[in-house]
Amino acid sequence: MVELIVSKRDGLELSADAIRWIIREYTADRIPDYQMSALLMAILLNGLTDEELAPWTEAMLHSGETLDLSDVSKPKIDKHSTGGVGDKISIPLAPIVAACGVAVPMISGRALGHTGGTLDKLESIPGFSVMVDPEEFKDQLDTVGVVMAGQTETLVPADRRMYGLRDATGTVPSIPLIASSVMSKKLAEDLDGLVLDVKVGSGAFMRSLEDATTLAETMVEIGRAAGTPTVAILTRMDQPLGAMVGNANEIAESIDVLKGGGPDDVAQLVETLAVAMLKRVGQSTDEATHSVRKAVASGAALDVFAELVKVQGGDPGIIDNPNLLPHAPREYVLKARRDGWVTRCDARVIGNAAVRLRAGRATKEDAIDPSVGFEILAKVGQRVTEGHPLARVAFESETVLERALQGLSGAWTISDDEPEPTDVILGVVE
Amino acid sequence: MVELIVSKRDGLELSADAIRWIIREYTADRIPDYQMSALLMAILLNGLTDEELAPWTEAMLHSGETLDLSDVSKPKIDKHSTGGVGDKISIPLAPIVAACGVAVPMISGRALGHTGGTLDKLESIPGFSVMVDPEEFKDQLDTVGVVMAGQTETLVPADRRMYGLRDATGTVPSIPLIASSVMSKKLAEDLDGLVLDVKVGSGAFMRSLEDATTLAETMVEIGRAAGTPTVAILTRMDQPLGAMVGNANEIAESIDVLKGGGPDDVAQLVETLAVAMLKRVGQSTDEATHSVRKAVASGAALDVFAELVKVQGGDPGIIDNPNLLPHAPREYVLKARRDGWVTRCDARVIGNAAVRLRAGRATKEDAIDPSVGFEILAKVGQRVTEGHPLARVAFESETVLERALQGLSGAWTISDDEPEPTDVILGVVE
Repeated sequence: MVELIVSKRDGLELSADAIRWIIREYTADRIPDYQMSALLMAILLNGLTDEELAPWTEAMLHSGETLDLSDVSKPKIDKHSTGGVGDKISIPLAPIVAACGVAVPMISGRALGHTGGTLDKLESIPGFSVMVDPEEFKDQLDTVGVVMAGQTETLVPADRRMYGLRDATGTVPSIPLIASSVMSKKLAEDLDGLVLDVKVGSGAFMRSLEDATTLAETMVEIGRAAGTPTVAILTRMDQPLGAMVGNANEIAESIDVLKGGGPDDVAQLVETLAVAMLKRVGQSTDEATHSVRKAVASGAALDVFAELVKVQGGDPGIIDNPNLLPHAPREYVLKARRDGWVTRCDARVIGNAAVRLRAGRATKEDAIDPSVGFEILAKVGQRVTEGHPLARVAFESETVLERALQGLSGAWTISDDEPEPTDVILGVVE
Repeated sequence: MVELIVSKRDGLELSADAIRWIIREYTADRIPDYQMSALLMAILLNGLTDEELAPWTEAMLHSGETLDLSDVSKPKIDKHSTGGVGDKISIPLAPIVAACGVAVPMISGRALGHTGGTLDKLESIPGFSVMVDPEEFKDQLDTVGVVMAGQTETLVPADRRMYGLRDATGTVPSIPLIASSVMSKKLAEDLDGLVLDVKVGSGAFMRSLEDATTLAETMVEIGRAAGTPTVAILTRMDQPLGAMVGNANEIAESIDVLKGGGPDDVAQLVETLAVAMLKRVGQSTDEATHSVRKAVASGAALDVFAELVKVQGGDPGIIDNPNLLPHAPREYVLKARRDGWVTRCDARVIGNAAVRLRAGRATKEDAIDPSVGFEILAKVGQRVTEGHPLARVAFESETVLERALQGLSGAWTISDDEPEPTDVILGVVE
């Protein structure tokens, strides 16, 4: 191991055999964390070549069990987002695509830092369980067409161990390490195609379009090398997606989208990603757009969502009666201090405030309160007057509210000039 | 700690307070090895500035107890070598300088890898102990004028822990980390001055004059910042120093030097370093040279060595009767395969063969056989004919001999052209 650390430290390329050995021995606990963290720092600073990245991802993927979905007759397509604020996209997206006849075996993550997590949002549905065992997973994919579950202990164990170590050693923001972490987990799902939503901006992991493009290209190349057709959509994450930032409130907003309503940016991004997923199975853009719109308009997508909630133990009554979702009893309204145009509504500032409100978590051990959250009432491009509500905060206790409010108003910039309109879709990497 | 790792990873400067915190918490076992190794890799790749290096060294130095030698009336000067093959210099040097009226509180190291260690050589003297407790240390320095001992557990504990970690994580060859490791240990000796022997060449840690000069400058600057006048002599380590490479045989050769004999290169380097040490206490080059030669010619230096051996539990009878030193019973002679001039006699190749012969150690846990070793019989510049002996090997078992001989003859290059003569002294950094 020391020799391999030295090679990477000195900018040399590791052989595929060496990489397989490292991942295997680390997963088996035969390489200590202190050697792995030195290697990870050397990788962060010196990079991994394409020739190293393919076996690295492959070895991660094979560090544990992988799903065998060969019995599932439908094509299997998943979507992965690099994470943002108010990013509830998966929740309406997966049932829509399933309603279009594609199986969606979606394994999602949890909230961490300023970004939210699909699993936490789903768990705000009374009774909903994100623990699905492999046999149920297959059956549900055949019958319902969609599974939304957490990662099991046995799937890509190398990534779970390595991610914890990276988090503790300042080695998270490495494009090859991020790319291999995401792709090893997605490739373990036995997919026929993958759509990546790579976020760019203040609330995203990648703040510059350049870095996001590099990450997108790296992941698409890993997918290509592994034989899983992958496309990445670069999308804006400067302000929260939609109005709701939290957990239960994002489920309610997702249901609105499934009913054909909801905020424009969410509906547009859901459609774009759904079309990209259907194109993976050979549909044209027009066909795919038509299918997606029909799935929503006919209520078929909402039916799939109801079935999904029911099969995973949740109460489908929430669909017709959102009051069944937890909702914090008290409200506070943050107001504009001046007249003007909203030119900035910072996703990261709002995401961090959500952590302080207990809608998110600072460390993996923190508990989430599903009932609290923000409703963003003024986004970029909106004209406001002094006193106009910027956000409504649903909260449990004054103490928590006060912490959450610290610096929250700094998320908004109100100017005299109207900002240029921007599009949520920034580009496609194929 | 994560934030500090991230700062160094991103090329920012750590504050003196942050550095003191890191060293204190790491020594107290409150920073895990996996975070420290990530930081060490970031330091290796991104460096430490002079502004970081001074508090880093200072914090290491104060991580445990330091010697208090203020009661010792004589000025206290030490020498440190960065390590080489056949480097027994300290053994004749320390008694010579002590015989000139300077106290030498020398804390030395052990053999590791291809380089030998003064402590292992001294322990080949029957009965000699390198464990000297702090009270004895002071008394012996007053009465004998020289102590040659190992590092205690309480002296610079941060370095002991960090060195083990660096060894296991590919983070040894960092000039600031080497410099602070050496200087923290030397500054803990409460010195009035320090002479560094910075080796350059195949058998040295620094193979290029440029790297060695940078290391020398870095250490001299740390000494200056800490108020301990420090000079570094850059010396050649392409071939072994002297004829003997081993342990007991290097003691015998050291005694020859103390008696006014021994190989020219050893005698010359001992004199150069002794003069440099005496100049630290204000002597001129002429005065110092005169003192050193007189100490040897008068037998005063040999008397100090005899006293040193006796006080530290060894048998001073070895001085008149080298047969009292352990000597492996069997001999093998490696011979030249052609006529010509020796143009290369590679210190690293011979040092590595010495490890296989068990005169050195590959890992810290390996035991050393003090009785085995090489006598180098043809060095660079010598004219040889086919069959001329290149080295005599003293060995215990055929198996070990065979392992040791593998590739050993490759240490020598014999050419048709006479090489240019070279000097062992390459430069001085003050």
